[in-house]
Amino acid sequence: MTPFDAPVYSARRARAAAQAAAAGLAGVLVTPGPDLRYFLGYTPAADTERLTLLVIRADDDGAAASAVVPRLEAHDLEVGAVGGIEAVAWSDGEDEHAVAARLLRPDGRYAISDAAWALHVLGLQRALPASSYAAVTTALPMLRAVKSPEEVARLAAAGAGADAVFAEIVTRPFAGRRERDVAADLDALLCEHGHEQVDFTLVCAGENGADPHHEAGDRVVVEGDMVVMDFGGLADGYGSDTTRTVHVGPLTDREQQVHDVVRAAQQAAVDAVRPGATCQDVDRAARSVVDDAGFGEHFVHRTGHGIGLTTHEPPYMVEGSETPVEPGMCFSVEPGIYLPGDFGVRIEDIVVAFPSGVPGMADTPDAAVRLNTSPHEVVVVG
Amino acid sequence: MTPFDAPVYSARRARAAAQAAAAGLAGVLVTPGPDLRYFLGYTPAADTERLTLLVIRADDDGAAASAVVPRLEAHDLEVGAVGGIEAVAWSDGEDEHAVAARLLRPDGRYAISDAAWALHVLGLQRALPASSYAAVTTALPMLRAVKSPEEVARLAAAGAGADAVFAEIVTRPFAGRRERDVAADLDALLCEHGHEQVDFTLVCAGENGADPHHEAGDRVVVEGDMVVMDFGGLADGYGSDTTRTVHVGPLTDREQQVHDVVRAAQQAAVDAVRPGATCQDVDRAARSVVDDAGFGEHFVHRTGHGIGLTTHEPPYMVEGSETPVEPGMCFSVEPGIYLPGDFGVRIEDIVVAFPSGVPGMADTPDAAVRLNTSPHEVVVVG
Repeated sequence: MTPFDAPVYSARRARAAAQAAAAGLAGVLVTPGPDLRYFLGYTPAADTERLTLLVIRADDDGAAASAVVPRLEAHDLEVGAVGGIEAVAWSDGEDEHAVAARLLRPDGRYAISDAAWALHVLGLQRALPASSYAAVTTALPMLRAVKSPEEVARLAAAGAGADAVFAEIVTRPFAGRRERDVAADLDALLCEHGHEQVDFTLVCAGENGADPHHEAGDRVVVEGDMVVMDFGGLADGYGSDTTRTVHVGPLTDREQQVHDVVRAAQQAAVDAVRPGATCQDVDRAARSVVDDAGFGEHFVHRTGHGIGLTTHEPPYMVEGSETPVEPGMCFSVEPGIYLPGDFGVRIEDIVVAFPSGVPGMADTPDAAVRLNTSPHEVVVVG
Repeated sequence: MTPFDAPVYSARRARAAAQAAAAGLAGVLVTPGPDLRYFLGYTPAADTERLTLLVIRADDDGAAASAVVPRLEAHDLEVGAVGGIEAVAWSDGEDEHAVAARLLRPDGRYAISDAAWALHVLGLQRALPASSYAAVTTALPMLRAVKSPEEVARLAAAGAGADAVFAEIVTRPFAGRRERDVAADLDALLCEHGHEQVDFTLVCAGENGADPHHEAGDRVVVEGDMVVMDFGGLADGYGSDTTRTVHVGPLTDREQQVHDVVRAAQQAAVDAVRPGATCQDVDRAARSVVDDAGFGEHFVHRTGHGIGLTTHEPPYMVEGSETPVEPGMCFSVEPGIYLPGDFGVRIEDIVVAFPSGVPGMADTPDAAVRLNTSPHEVVVVG
């Protein structure tokens, strides 16, 4: 991905330090993956068992950063990190957790990347028995949740690419082709439309649509099928994720009814993004519409998830989450109804919350702005 | 990958249970990735933040297995796990660590997959404050280290594929092409020769060869270059990893000398696989040859790593490892000398230790048998 300017990364680190301090933490420990890309603009060549660990101290102003790194990768880190970094190298045979421990407060409590290896969090606990750790999304769930205008612009571009894919795929034949053939088209189209990585291309025809995680198989699409398509990936580092349910030929009344309910639920969830709303409120808004229509038991997943450098990240739109929806949060809104043995319907857009509240973003009267603009009515395909 | 028969997986689980019991552990907790493929033959469609956790109890006979799984993936797990499994499903919004905790001994000590997410190991610690955890490779480092004849056969096939790639690449032109062009050829050749996944194709010409982790860039290979090529991936689920250093045109005496030293060091390390040898002995044998030749400071990494379902796993051939080399262990032997600003040389083969000691494997007088048979003398390319 195109790196941002160095001050973007130091500002992120300073914000993490401030959030850590406010939460009574000694700092934030960052391992390879999206967190390290976020705070350092750096991705090691391979995520192996060897420890790479960026240490953001609670008293850090973001300007200086140091990271524990395998000696063989120290040069890569120094060159690859945007704005430079002090590499604290360790060699094969050394205890890398002891090396890292020297950068930590022996009795400190640290947030650590969710996907940090158990090997390393347990190694740090062993090296510093009085220290303690919490997963970043538990301790500081909103660390990457609020997007800057530059990030929203990338998410919007990714979403526009996905919408272009949808506009193109519905012009192609469905009936007579296997789900996996349509999925292969989606894959190729995502690449054509700016994606450097395709994460999923779900094509679920007829009864397969009733399994929310069905991928794409040998089932041949036939006249009369509802077809759920859920696809996305990364474009210039940021995620797309959209779902539309199309139909081969005219719909039955019941199919149309179910689609109408999902569409209304999706709109209700978007409308639930109001000042003071929590993530749970967004989930409840969608669920309430589905419940009222009598399909409650068939809406078997949460309403949405955050998106950014990954296609699944906090905040989650789920019962129990009292996280307030804040300006700049970007997340999916994707209710669905799944009728076993019959068919399924899901509609998914990415939205950005309260863009007017984000310095540097365009003013708009809408509390939530969709980054996907594919039509919500059922598209009939051939 | 082609699954093995169901009894292979239940035998592996029974062995893990026995090793856990012998180590005073309550069991082994397995998360998605190579460990889950090893014990269950199962790979979730995506490794997300949602918890999937196979629980192997120390008193398990391997026959029955239960796993915590996201509700949406319960069906995938039941269908995908070889030999079947009891799925303990949890739904979005539930505390998945509380669900998992009900399968665990509240005061038990468990080994957990190295790459388990920190989110989950910390969640289990929170759910069961009296429980404790150790990384599998710390607590039971040899759990996947000893390969069965079926696994050695797959590693041998992967190695033969990599050797075929080497035989072909040296017939192609080097001079005048960029490192990345040669790397692209290696990538395509690995796919042609049975690999479903390419993990790395390092091509390091001239001074780039002095950086053991240089990948492949825009540098154009020229007459007189040493070129280190290190490549591998997965073939039918098992890894290949081999390195040869070739030369464009005739070598200088010094280049030949350095290559001779590395070749001798590599042979010495293979010869160090003797009854009673530890992993550290293998490392020391290679290092001793390099030291004696006066290049000790330029051999900056361990001598080798285990290989199996991943291309980097225990046992590690490194100073400090007193792990005995056991029959059926498969690992790389890859000493190198790196002369900054000048060139580098590395030679790497995968070997299987004491095959005669593995029931079901062919008898051989050799303590260590190479699974790579590409020539060890410098191949001169054009």
